Amino acid sequence: MAETILWALLIEYDGGGFAGWQRQGNLPTVQAVLEQAAGKLCGVARIACTAAGRTDAGVHAAGQVVQLSLPDRFSAERVRDALNFHMKPHPVVVLQAAPAPPGWHARFSAIGRRYLFRISDRRARAALARGRVWHIAHRLDVAAMHAAARVLVGRHDFTSFRATACQAKSPIRTLDRLDVARVGEEIEVVAEARSFLHHQVRNMVGTLALVGAGRWEIEAVKTALEALDRRAAGPTAPPEGLYLMEVCYEGSLLNG
Amino acid sequence: MAETILWALLIEYDGGGFAGWQRQGNLPTVQAVLEQAAGKLCGVARIACTAAGRTDAGVHAAGQVVQLSLPDRFSAERVRDALNFHMKPHPVVVLQAAPAPPGWHARFSAIGRRYLFRISDRRARAALARGRVWHIAHRLDVAAMHAAARVLVGRHDFTSFRATACQAKSPIRTLDRLDVARVGEEIEVVAEARSFLHHQVRNMVGTLALVGAGRWEIEAVKTALEALDRRAAGPTAPPEGLYLMEVCYEGSLLNG
Repeated sequence: MAETILWALLIEYDGGGFAGWQRQGNLPTVQAVLEQAAGKLCGVARIACTAAGRTDAGVHAAGQVVQLSLPDRFSAERVRDALNFHMKPHPVVVLQAAPAPPGWHARFSAIGRRYLFRISDRRARAALARGRVWHIAHRLDVAAMHAAARVLVGRHDFTSFRATACQAKSPIRTLDRLDVARVGEEIEVVAEARSFLHHQVRNMVGTLALVGAGRWEIEAVKTALEALDRRAAGPTAPPEGLYLMEVCYEGSLLNG
Repeated sequence: MAETILWALLIEYDGGGFAGWQRQGNLPTVQAVLEQAAGKLCGVARIACTAAGRTDAGVHAAGQVVQLSLPDRFSAERVRDALNFHMKPHPVVVLQAAPAPPGWHARFSAIGRRYLFRISDRRARAALARGRVWHIAHRLDVAAMHAAARVLVGRHDFTSFRATACQAKSPIRTLDRLDVARVGEEIEVVAEARSFLHHQVRNMVGTLALVGAGRWEIEAVKTALEALDRRAAGPTAPPEGLYLMEVCYEGSLLNG
């Protein structure tokens, strides 16, 4: 291949129909859709790409960041538009493409990640927001959930909130933000950290939902955190409420 | 049948998979789903119902109002929950059920209707909002659109903005509100009137989009309105951006 350029892409997708970000044989994955589209642009089978966060099956993204190398002959607009053309009709789009600075890596250069988790706690299931929210058919106590979230903010061993299959070397993370608020008729949980453990956001949300339902006291969240045992915390919230909203880097690489 | 009660239902639906509100043979329609669910509740094939507005194929509703008569043996909660159970897995839900006051009619007692039309004018098509917005791939001038909308507010002969198949006796309507604003990264058009002509909102939005794109001057909207000819106005905007948000009645019947 001729000289190549490393591109940073800002990506949005509806995770509902995908087996997650990561390529897995012939399963429909976001990575496969993007890699095949990049391949079509360049006349090859596929072009490898790497994401800032490997979202699980059913998880959505409004601000995923991906890197891939392309031959040095496309403008940023052409990269964005051509990939979007070739990704049709899949619900995956490139919002922005920008040349990456030297040494930049989509995953390892990230200094922050923000997730949103949407809960609908009305009686009727979601029709318009179907597949976009976790529906819990009884009213939750948002103030209690937000208070319980205070327990989790900070630097902790999050063993109780990581998937048992989590491959991270250390279970210690610094949770910079975990806010719970009612927005319209939904509840939104916003989580920010440099990085998260596998299933960490969904496990924290599943636990906060127990508090919101009045089944757990706030103190029980502290006990669960200190137990350092996945079985001590609440269930894993379903993927359809989770959105990767933003990945942060030093400087202003992408401004979607 | 024993004594019956007339119920008012507040309904939400994703119109994407439906051939509109109104029953049409074996086509999938919102009315068919609701009438069959009510039939299941009562052990009959179906129970007729009437909506405040017969939305077109692909049009959504967050606040449709429907009436139907049921035997006098259900609580409001039971009507809502049982209909929602029987309507699974269709994206149609009853948000609220309330006994209707004497003489009330879902359609003829309505004194106001509010519609929302969502436009996404970013370059990339919608992934997360797919089927929920009208995507126009170039940036629109929202201020110009809002200014052009001033021309349409008030009491006018809207012949230029009604479907040629529209069956209303009079083309005269009073448009109480037509606001265009940027909300987040989308454009929202809000329209309020006692009633609308067939396709009126979509035809107005299609015309305002011409102004937003710089293809029409504001003055051209006035010329189109005064032409009293459907061909003089802009195209019909697609259904997927349109939402019936609210139907208003005297008093406080439903407060979804």
